[in-house]
Amino acid sequence: MWFQTEIQIAPKARGFHLITAEVERQLPGLQKVDIGWMQLFIQHTSASLTINENADPTVRGDMERHFNEFVPERAPYYAHDYEGDDDMPAHIKSSVLGASIMVPITEGRLNLGIWQGIYLGEHRNHGGVRRLIATVNGR
Amino acid sequence: MWFQTEIQIAPKARGFHLITAEVERQLPGLQKVDIGWMQLFIQHTSASLTINENADPTVRGDMERHFNEFVPERAPYYAHDYEGDDDMPAHIKSSVLGASIMVPITEGRLNLGIWQGIYLGEHRNHGGVRRLIATVNGR
Amino acid sequence: MWFQTEIQIAPKARGFHLITAEVERQLPGLQKVDIGWMQLFIQHTSASLTINENADPTVRGDMERHFNEFVPERAPYYAHDYEGDDDMPAHIKSSVLGASIMVPITEGRLNLGIWQGIYLGEHRNHGGVRRLIATVNGR
Repeated sequence: MWFQTEIQIAPKARGFHLITAEVERQLPGLQKVDIGWMQLFIQHTSASLTINENADPTVRGDMERHFNEFVPERAPYYAHDYEGDDDMPAHIKSSVLGASIMVPITEGRLNLGIWQGIYLGEHRNHGGVRRLIATVNGR
Repeated sequence: MWFQTEIQIAPKARGFHLITAEVERQLPGLQKVDIGWMQLFIQHTSASLTINENADPTVRGDMERHFNEFVPERAPYYAHDYEGDDDMPAHIKSSVLGASIMVPITEGRLNLGIWQGIYLGEHRNHGGVRRLIATVNGR
Repeated sequence: MWFQTEIQIAPKARGFHLITAEVERQLPGLQKVDIGWMQLFIQHTSASLTINENADPTVRGDMERHFNEFVPERAPYYAHDYEGDDDMPAHIKSSVLGASIMVPITEGRLNLGIWQGIYLGEHRNHGGVRRLIATVNGR
């Protein structure tokens, strides 16, 4: 069993956002899969996908503050700054965090741990709509 | 061919641990797969999975020392510290390193490079048992 | 449909290199896949694979400069330095960036975003030939 769909995420503020429910809502075939995988792939190089704590919004805030500290704007060694101070840091964050996640499917649902959720990392100040490709394979 | 199993890893000290042999031992169906993949997914947000050097324990020690330096405890900007100084750094490390790895299978075995092994990163001081979901697909 | 092939990448200078075209050239079966995935896995622990901006070479230069700053050589806490100053930093970079990427396939082509390309991160000064395992599955 294979299915694939494009998911559009409405523009979000810079920072980390929990999108688990929004993704699940757009994957109606999931419950037919007994064993499998769902991959979520973001088609952009200045936003990212990662899995982290799903309950406390301070984790998302601390993630944003940490990455802003450790991938600074206006580093003296950046040559790529055509689109503003958030341009190159957004590219670096996207590679450190990654462009895709893959979650096992078990008995018709994403087999995330009880505290795990899917984060969209928006690393631009004005990122616009983000396109994700969700692909499910299983039996 | 699909199979999926839960692997429980007994509590480990904070740091990086080589778990390749332990994982392979719990995947008896692997040798039937000619071409495929094995995904290992950790159901926690304060531990991680990564692939690195399998021979010299100083690499694991240096990884732990590096990540403690670059994802510091008690950063002034952390709001999420309810469970102690190791709480938020563990969440950040889990996203930087990742919650899953995927290894190609070739002729019945994990097709890792000769120097590659699977690391569990335990980022809490007292992390407890860690649950992994191993999923294999192939033909 | 499954296929798997080993791709050898000729020695490259330390830094980030765009290898999308080279990978696609070595995956002739791709156009038969309507929905699926391609995984690229690097069998080394001092080089990495990541997805980032495919147009402007300054992004690759800035990535190299950033990672050299944030994963320094000769950190006082490194014990693993047998192969030179670039030894342990290369291992750390390989885990931060990752040993594999997975790209959805849609209607016979890698469904990358318009600005996305596949980067090989060469983290050693003299890394030699790098072996990748490309695995494709789909229908």
